[in-house]
Amino acid sequence: MGACPHAWRHNLQHRGRMWAASPAFRRQLFLLRSLAPSCTCVSGGRASSSSLRVHAMHAAAAGAVYEADAESVVRRITPPLDRARHKGQAGKIAVIGGCREYTGAPYFAAISALKVGADLSHVFCTKDAATVIKSYSPELIVHPILEESYSVRDDERESVSSIILTEVTKWMERFDCIVVGPGLGRDSFLLDGLFLVTNNISLVEDNSLAILTPNVYEYKRLVQKVLNCDVDEENASEQLTTLCQKIGGVTIMKKGKADVISDGKQVTQVSTFGSPRRCGGQGDILSGSVALFSSWARHFLLSNDQPTEKSVNPMILGCIAGSLLLRKAAGLAFEKKKRSTVTTDIIEFLGKSLEDICPAEQ
Amino acid sequence: MGACPHAWRHNLQHRGRMWAASPAFRRQLFLLRSLAPSCTCVSGGRASSSSLRVHAMHAAAAGAVYEADAESVVRRITPPLDRARHKGQAGKIAVIGGCREYTGAPYFAAISALKVGADLSHVFCTKDAATVIKSYSPELIVHPILEESYSVRDDERESVSSIILTEVTKWMERFDCIVVGPGLGRDSFLLDGLFLVTNNISLVEDNSLAILTPNVYEYKRLVQKVLNCDVDEENASEQLTTLCQKIGGVTIMKKGKADVISDGKQVTQVSTFGSPRRCGGQGDILSGSVALFSSWARHFLLSNDQPTEKSVNPMILGCIAGSLLLRKAAGLAFEKKKRSTVTTDIIEFLGKSLEDICPAEQ
Repeated sequence: MGACPHAWRHNLQHRGRMWAASPAFRRQLFLLRSLAPSCTCVSGGRASSSSLRVHAMHAAAAGAVYEADAESVVRRITPPLDRARHKGQAGKIAVIGGCREYTGAPYFAAISALKVGADLSHVFCTKDAATVIKSYSPELIVHPILEESYSVRDDERESVSSIILTEVTKWMERFDCIVVGPGLGRDSFLLDGLFLVTNNISLVEDNSLAILTPNVYEYKRLVQKVLNCDVDEENASEQLTTLCQKIGGVTIMKKGKADVISDGKQVTQVSTFGSPRRCGGQGDILSGSVALFSSWARHFLLSNDQPTEKSVNPMILGCIAGSLLLRKAAGLAFEKKKRSTVTTDIIEFLGKSLEDICPAEQ
Repeated sequence: MGACPHAWRHNLQHRGRMWAASPAFRRQLFLLRSLAPSCTCVSGGRASSSSLRVHAMHAAAAGAVYEADAESVVRRITPPLDRARHKGQAGKIAVIGGCREYTGAPYFAAISALKVGADLSHVFCTKDAATVIKSYSPELIVHPILEESYSVRDDERESVSSIILTEVTKWMERFDCIVVGPGLGRDSFLLDGLFLVTNNISLVEDNSLAILTPNVYEYKRLVQKVLNCDVDEENASEQLTTLCQKIGGVTIMKKGKADVISDGKQVTQVSTFGSPRRCGGQGDILSGSVALFSSWARHFLLSNDQPTEKSVNPMILGCIAGSLLLRKAAGLAFEKKKRSTVTTDIIEFLGKSLEDICPAEQ
C-alpha cells in the first residue's frame, strides 16, 4: 500500500471533514502520505509557450494582501482541448464523502469538477448515500463502499475498516486529485475531518499537495488548536502564513468576503465579487473546482521548463482559479435567479464562466 | 434454450464488459451463440428504392483506410416513419449492464437507442442498479435480475446463475439487438467482459452478428491476447483485419481519433470531427446507437433484393452510422456547452443530428 508504484499525482483536498475510523485513520494517514507524486505524465500544448506570471503573490510581510491576477491564472493553467487526447487526460477526480445525512455536498463537488472540464468524476460514499447521489446524475461513478457506525458492530470495526481501506486504496492510485470530506457528517465511524485535522495535524503535515479550505468557523477552530490563540483580524495574513508554516507546507484557502490563500511562503487573495447569496453548497463547488484546477496547474508547471515557474506553487494557482470561477458563476446565477439562486444554478454557470475567461479551442 | 424458434435477429454488442458467472458463462456463451438470425421480419419502405453505396469500403490491403460515406449510410439504413407501423417495428433494444458501481453506462446506452429512434429500450441489471437507472428516466424498462457476488453465497452460485439465465433467455428472444456489458464492473459474479472476450474468444468466434467496440486500451489487450503481439500502428488496418479474421468474422470498431471498422474483409473509418471533450460515457452512447443502426441495417439489407447489396455487412453499416451520429451530436453539444459538456448534453443532440442528416418524413 505504501509503495503506490503506479500512482498518479494526487492532491489532497480537505473541506473540513474527512473520512476514517480511529484505527483506520492511522492507515488512512499513511495512505494520504503515500499519495506523493511519482509520475511524470504531463500535459503538453500551451504549457511551454508562455511564462506564468502570478502578480504580487509574494507579498504578505507587511500585512497587505495583494489581489491575484486570477483570470490570467485560469487562462494559463487550463489545458488546451487537444483532439489527440484520450479519456482521462483532462483529469480524473475522486470525492470521498456522502453519508446518510449528506448527499448534496459530495455531488456538488464531483459534478463541479466534471462541469469545469474533468473527464471522470468518482464519489466514494456510504451505501445509503450512493443510491441518492447516483440518481442525481448518471455522469458520476459512485462507489458505495464506506460504512457508518450504525451498520458496523464494535467487534467488526477493525475488519470492516481494513476492507474499506483496501478497496479505497486500490482506486485512489488512479486519480489526479482527491477531495476528502464534503458530506461525511460526524458519525463516529466516518470521523469528522475537522477533528482529524485539528487533533491530528500530522495527517496533512509537510504535505505540500494538501489544501485545506476552511470557512470562518473551521478556520477559527484550526487557529485555536494549532496556534493556541484566537483569530487575529489585525494581522490576518501573518497569522495565516504562520498557520501554514506550523502545519508544514500545506496550502490553506481561508474562505470569506475575500478568499485568502497561503502556503506559508506567500499570501494572495481573490476578492472578485460573486453573489450575496449564501446558500449552502458553494464550498463544495469550490472543492471540486480547486481539485481540478490544482491538478491542471501541476501538469502545467511540470511541463513548463522556464526557471521562473519552478518556484510557483500549483496548489496556490488551483485555489486562485477555483475561487475566481465560483465567484463568476455565482454572479451570473444571481443575475438570473436573484434570491432564489441555489447551488445547482451556480453549477450551471461554471461552463460559461470558464468560457468567458478562457474560450475552448476548436 | 438453444432452439429459439421465434428468435428475432440479434446482434451482440460488446463494450468491453460482459455479464456472466463462470459456470453461467458457458451457458451464456451458448445463449449468445444461439442468437442467430432465424426471422425474416424486415422493415420495408425506402429499402428497395435505392441501392446502397458504401464508397471505398473495400480497401485495406495497402494500409490506406478509406473514409466511409457515413451520411449516405445513415440516410439509407434509417427506416422511414411509416404511419402504418406498430410499436416495436422501429427497434427493440436490450442493454445488459449496470451494477453497484456503474449505473450511468447502461442508462446512456439504453436512452441513446431510444433517442435515435428505437421504440423500446430495456435494461437488465442488478437490483442495486435498477432503482437508480429507473430514476434516471421513466422511458426505460428496467429488469433487476442480475446478481453480484456479495449477495450470492458460493453454494448458491450455480442455481442463481440458472435462474438468471432462464429469465434473461426468455426476454432476449424479443430484441433486435443486445448491448452486452456497459457498466458491469469487475465483480466475480458479473465477470468482466474484456476478460471474457480475451480469454474466451469462442464467445464471439464466428459470430458475424457480434460487434466489439474497444477503446484504445481495450484494443491493446485484445491484440495482445488474440494475436500475441503489440499494437502495430504502422500497419494498423492490416492488424485490425487479421484480428477480425482470427476471431472469425466479428466486426470490430476500434475507437479513437478516427473510428476504424473492420469485419476481416474490409476496413473503413469515420473521422468526422466531433468534440475535443473526452468525458466518460460517450462510448455508451456509441453502443446504443450502433445497436439500433445495426438492426436497422440488417432489416434494410434483407428487404433489398439488389444483388450488389448482398455482399454488404450490416454490422459495418451500423458502426459507421453510430460513429457519425455520436460525432455530430458531440460537436453540437460542444458548440453549446464547451468545456462543461457532459454525456447527457450529447444525448440531447442525437435527435437533431439525425434530423440534419435524414429528416423524418411526415
